[in-house]
Amino acid sequence: MFACVGFAAASATAPLARTTLQRRDPGPTDVRIDILYCGVCHSDLHTARDEWGGTVYPCIPGHEIVGRVVEAGAEVRGFKPGDIVGVGCLVDSCRACSACAEGLEQYCENGFVGTYNSPDTHTGGVTYGGYTKAIVVDQAFVLKIRATDNLAAVAPLLCAGITTYSPLRHWRVGRGSKVGVVGLGGLGHMGLKLAHAMGAEVTLFTTSANKADDARRLGAAHVVVTRDPDAMTRASGGFDFILDTVAADHDVNPLLNLLKRDGTMVQVGAPEKPLAVAPFSLIFKRRNFAGSLIGGLPETQEMLDFCAEHGITADIELIRMEQINDAYARMLKSDVKYRFVIDMASL
Amino acid sequence: MFACVGFAAASATAPLARTTLQRRDPGPTDVRIDILYCGVCHSDLHTARDEWGGTVYPCIPGHEIVGRVVEAGAEVRGFKPGDIVGVGCLVDSCRACSACAEGLEQYCENGFVGTYNSPDTHTGGVTYGGYTKAIVVDQAFVLKIRATDNLAAVAPLLCAGITTYSPLRHWRVGRGSKVGVVGLGGLGHMGLKLAHAMGAEVTLFTTSANKADDARRLGAAHVVVTRDPDAMTRASGGFDFILDTVAADHDVNPLLNLLKRDGTMVQVGAPEKPLAVAPFSLIFKRRNFAGSLIGGLPETQEMLDFCAEHGITADIELIRMEQINDAYARMLKSDVKYRFVIDMASL
Repeated sequence: MFACVGFAAASATAPLARTTLQRRDPGPTDVRIDILYCGVCHSDLHTARDEWGGTVYPCIPGHEIVGRVVEAGAEVRGFKPGDIVGVGCLVDSCRACSACAEGLEQYCENGFVGTYNSPDTHTGGVTYGGYTKAIVVDQAFVLKIRATDNLAAVAPLLCAGITTYSPLRHWRVGRGSKVGVVGLGGLGHMGLKLAHAMGAEVTLFTTSANKADDARRLGAAHVVVTRDPDAMTRASGGFDFILDTVAADHDVNPLLNLLKRDGTMVQVGAPEKPLAVAPFSLIFKRRNFAGSLIGGLPETQEMLDFCAEHGITADIELIRMEQINDAYARMLKSDVKYRFVIDMASL
Repeated sequence: MFACVGFAAASATAPLARTTLQRRDPGPTDVRIDILYCGVCHSDLHTARDEWGGTVYPCIPGHEIVGRVVEAGAEVRGFKPGDIVGVGCLVDSCRACSACAEGLEQYCENGFVGTYNSPDTHTGGVTYGGYTKAIVVDQAFVLKIRATDNLAAVAPLLCAGITTYSPLRHWRVGRGSKVGVVGLGGLGHMGLKLAHAMGAEVTLFTTSANKADDARRLGAAHVVVTRDPDAMTRASGGFDFILDTVAADHDVNPLLNLLKRDGTMVQVGAPEKPLAVAPFSLIFKRRNFAGSLIGGLPETQEMLDFCAEHGITADIELIRMEQINDAYARMLKSDVKYRFVIDMASL
């Protein structure tokens, strides 16, 4: 074991504060990574504050990790010291079930091991995430980063990027697709960039008219303010696919009505309360309402390569580690364009 | 025009009673049909009592029609006097939009013409359904009935049959599929028969343990009582496709949790109130919640041919026309196995 510093929540109500944690020494298939940047995801805040239940303290969040390999176990292939790599939401899975066999580790039938707050089979405790100086991860869950600059802005691709990329690919968005993205936050702004890069004609649906210019810069061809009933009526029935990134409670039926026959709306934001779905919203055009969870390792690598090829990164605000509690407060007010990323050199 | 007798509701609160209505004389592409049998669908009751709004009185329901051709217009091809034919939920559509071009007239972009309570372009009034002695329908919306006996039990195929057949086909149910059917009523009993005939392993989900024997006779390999939490847990994640036929308010989340990854649950019952869908029910296994509406003309013909080939009809209780108000009262208590059909000879 080796000691490394990080920032942890000691309880659901405590602010995050500096701590020292123990990491395992790398085994034969492990990669030890010095963390350069870690994105700040809404899930970090939910977990730190035990808002989904089940948080074990101390809790060290962070699953949008970019770092440099400093050590690779004897059996590691494809990674060597000095390589720039990424770690996302998963650090292990059963590797035996049908989902794992298909490279869909996020749907592991036996439960994947999350990057933080999951049972850690190596230590017997829970996993600790990326708000730390270093992490040790099995090579099968480490991703190659081909981007060479702006690495801080690559970090959010590991969760916000793949969470939006995976459903866009699964439901075959491409040239000619009419795509709606609902909500312009960390997920939504990646949805705009990715769907646009895939060739779709993208419309942002937002409650805030003042986001229109930004949305167009990020790839939206059109912006519809959802509080404008005439605009919503004009848009109805016009979309092949809608990516709903809104995590707050909201009425999904006007959004479902935007879909063409056989269209699909996918929820990637995760409102805590159930959403009220009017059956007629689905029945009259054989519409689909679906969910999607991050992405598996092969698809995450594909997404990183796609982003490198298309020059796509997140729009970020770089913060120092000790600003994390302020960052959480600002996230709750949606006061970030569009993702906080922690500069680990500040720790 | 010609006069024919039927049963109509004069208002939302009036019992159905004998009336005389006017039908158009058949035009060049029309078929005049003497109605032999008409099934009694829950939609009939909803419309007669204006429970969905928009009912024009007098209202003559009925869209599960089997009859005999007595006259065919000069341009009619494929139907001649004496033929046994069917008419379902649709009697016309725009025939120009992309849905109609694909034979999906039920999703006509310009609004299909329902068999009853739709604007009737021929008369300027509304359409009148099958609770009558005769009907005149354009040949494009008339179906061939190949079954030779038990024609009364063929009638419910025109709505209950196609409403369940269409989603089973669209979501590719077949040999090897694990299918759940929720609810054992008019739709559910057809769902069991059809999914079984398609080669699926079918499980009935019901609130009533006493329906188990009947379910097995109708094609279910297994029966799960939804009020038994242990049985529901054992069944979770085991289904490729679920057909939810329940029209009453109910919790769909335990049903969604029965789906495998990438599985689909389709709502064909149409609860009036929105259904509360927990996003996590969809997100964790990329599940789909969809709707489906009856079927188009080509698929309805395919379904009738499939049923003729497999000897499938509905389980019915034959009633006389004057028993319709009692039948409605019994339907509200689910006191029918599993569809009332009116013997039009009784009128």
